Amino acid sequence: MLHLSRPLTDYTINSARMREDFDALCEIGGTPEGGVDRVALSQQDWQARLWFADRVYDCHLKQDDDDAANLSGALRSSRPDAKTLLLGSHLDSVPNGGRYDGAVGIIAGLECLRTLHEHDLQLPFHIELINFTDDEGTWHSLFGARAVAGMLPPEVTSEARIENAAFSAALARVGLRLRDVANAKRDPASLVGYLELHIEHGTRLERANASIGVVTDIVGRTTYDIVFHGAAGHSGTTDMYKRRDALRGAAQFITRAHELVRARYGDGIFNCGDVAVEPGKYNIIPSKAELTIELRHVSESLMADMEMAMIQIARECAAVHGLTVDVKPVIHMPAAAMNPGFIQVIESCCDALDLSHMRLVSYAGHAAQVISQVTPCAMIFVPSAGGVGHAPTEYTPWEDIEAGANALLHTILALAASAE
Amino acid sequence: MLHLSRPLTDYTINSARMREDFDALCEIGGTPEGGVDRVALSQQDWQARLWFADRVYDCHLKQDDDDAANLSGALRSSRPDAKTLLLGSHLDSVPNGGRYDGAVGIIAGLECLRTLHEHDLQLPFHIELINFTDDEGTWHSLFGARAVAGMLPPEVTSEARIENAAFSAALARVGLRLRDVANAKRDPASLVGYLELHIEHGTRLERANASIGVVTDIVGRTTYDIVFHGAAGHSGTTDMYKRRDALRGAAQFITRAHELVRARYGDGIFNCGDVAVEPGKYNIIPSKAELTIELRHVSESLMADMEMAMIQIARECAAVHGLTVDVKPVIHMPAAAMNPGFIQVIESCCDALDLSHMRLVSYAGHAAQVISQVTPCAMIFVPSAGGVGHAPTEYTPWEDIEAGANALLHTILALAASAE
Repeated sequence: MLHLSRPLTDYTINSARMREDFDALCEIGGTPEGGVDRVALSQQDWQARLWFADRVYDCHLKQDDDDAANLSGALRSSRPDAKTLLLGSHLDSVPNGGRYDGAVGIIAGLECLRTLHEHDLQLPFHIELINFTDDEGTWHSLFGARAVAGMLPPEVTSEARIENAAFSAALARVGLRLRDVANAKRDPASLVGYLELHIEHGTRLERANASIGVVTDIVGRTTYDIVFHGAAGHSGTTDMYKRRDALRGAAQFITRAHELVRARYGDGIFNCGDVAVEPGKYNIIPSKAELTIELRHVSESLMADMEMAMIQIARECAAVHGLTVDVKPVIHMPAAAMNPGFIQVIESCCDALDLSHMRLVSYAGHAAQVISQVTPCAMIFVPSAGGVGHAPTEYTPWEDIEAGANALLHTILALAASAE
Repeated sequence: MLHLSRPLTDYTINSARMREDFDALCEIGGTPEGGVDRVALSQQDWQARLWFADRVYDCHLKQDDDDAANLSGALRSSRPDAKTLLLGSHLDSVPNGGRYDGAVGIIAGLECLRTLHEHDLQLPFHIELINFTDDEGTWHSLFGARAVAGMLPPEVTSEARIENAAFSAALARVGLRLRDVANAKRDPASLVGYLELHIEHGTRLERANASIGVVTDIVGRTTYDIVFHGAAGHSGTTDMYKRRDALRGAAQFITRAHELVRARYGDGIFNCGDVAVEPGKYNIIPSKAELTIELRHVSESLMADMEMAMIQIARECAAVHGLTVDVKPVIHMPAAAMNPGFIQVIESCCDALDLSHMRLVSYAGHAAQVISQVTPCAMIFVPSAGGVGHAPTEYTPWEDIEAGANALLHTILALAASAE
């Protein structure tokens, strides 16, 4: 149990100091368009990590790293049996990305730890801020977080697979080996939970004029390759009623799948991102159409239902046009519920700090989605102007970042206060 | 006016002699699959031309060629003011094509001229059999026929265009220059008409158990590139009702265009042969979808109507999904009506020869489509088993080729008999 020497509302982050960190970080990999380019394991990413390591040192935190190249700064509890509360985010970006995605979670976490250190509190748990490797998936989406959760599949970490050669080489440049990545897994028994602050990637907070989004769930995501097979033929001389046109079936499927998700799955997402047609000539009936499909849903059971319905539509569209269809699952990231107790703590803190807040579902994937498989998680969203994400024009008003950091600080304090 | 020394039914082609020609031709560019590979201006194509030149010599015909590399053998009339009746076909093939497409027109034409020569008739016109260059469009579809009709557009014959460099070099190897191709144009006043014998590329004759198809019309063909422009976005976080998904609009267009043509244009053909999507990722909403479209119709006015309706649908599909659309015409080959007088002559000859026949529209393009712009044309189709075309499995029963050659011979005799 935490003992505070001052009233809770006296604890607040140093906005000017946090701003200095933000400005310094914007310089690293800064682009002419006003964004940043810090793709995972690039020179710019490693420059950002060095900067982070310097801040960890300056803030009197204990620096650590693991075999997945995750980099940490921790404020240690003096209790011998202390577990760890994780804070996490990422310094890497998508190519030609924005300044705020990931970075605000790191600077807010750093400022929280620095503030807590200054107050010299007797913490009931360690607090560790992790910069996760390759959150954006330059190599493998949520790589560092999946390593910590022990959820990386063998095809990602096998050194025998030629597909992993480039990633293996990128890790080797920083002294790591794919075969050791499994060591990064944390023992769930050693963890208190996980908190992540991030920009919203959407306009719900902006439209509601709210400062803080309290995430209740993160959508699950499944990708498929759906391949329709028909028969090529002369476009002029083949009877219009005897064609087995793979693209015609595929087009009907795209239309019907969009309609299905809107009509029956209010919170569901469908995207067909690409089509590859063979043989692809003006005067030849398409024999093959391969679709690149993504489904998202916040409920695992409705997701499964939606997947079944989509496959059924694919089969119907194939049957109507005399085609066959192959449905190949590619990736499944399960939906994740945030911890109800953590959600209530964040909301109470926001109320105490007089910050407007609303509950939200995250339709983008985040490290918390993965970490929630092993320990209770919560996410604090701050607004993103116009819902922009993964673009140089990302923008979050500074007072919202400040509000988010204070909400994070008070959530940590409240969790510490209620700990055994 | 032709004077025959014997009853008309005594005139008949020599099937065994024609068969020797066919067998010899199958050897040239013959493939293991039982087809032929004689793409225009290839070594195999030139070997076939040399064979043709030898036959022309053996048959006592006058050999000729022109600046489009068309190669002819002619039976000359002794009349000083004689015009020319053209017979035409092609020895080139698509890559890995069949033995019958094009070749049967050449061997039947040769056999007709040889038979006529043997009977030593006083012809009222010259009869010239042309082997057209690049009918199949290895370089430019119907190149030789368009040159004879004077219908090659400047972009095909310009030596200044880099796109024509390879074709120009291929012509140069046989001593021809693009700049001279225009010389191949024939004076319409010098022509009586044009006859072409070809395999059907369809199953209508086979299903009707008819030996001879009398072509009434050749479909027009128009190709378009239709480009839908939307906005890329994060597939997870962009509101499902605010997406500007270029592929969703394109898919609806493909479905609606297929339905439109079937519902309102019974003789119309629509094909969407390819789709190119940008940026083409699972989790990004497509910003661009470019479709490769073809329309065919036997009526030029209904074709124009169908094109307008298709463009209207493209605009509607764009508007519904917040997209813009660019419609880019690529090629237009106008529909062609065969000469009604010639059609009746062929039908009368078939009746006299006791050959079953039916009128047909050609849904594939042929040299007659182009030549009909300058002189009366007719086409005789022979059956193609299973409707196969442009494949090694092409097959036409020999008795049908024999019947077609006799129908061609008697059509020539009838035209000669009725000539001034």
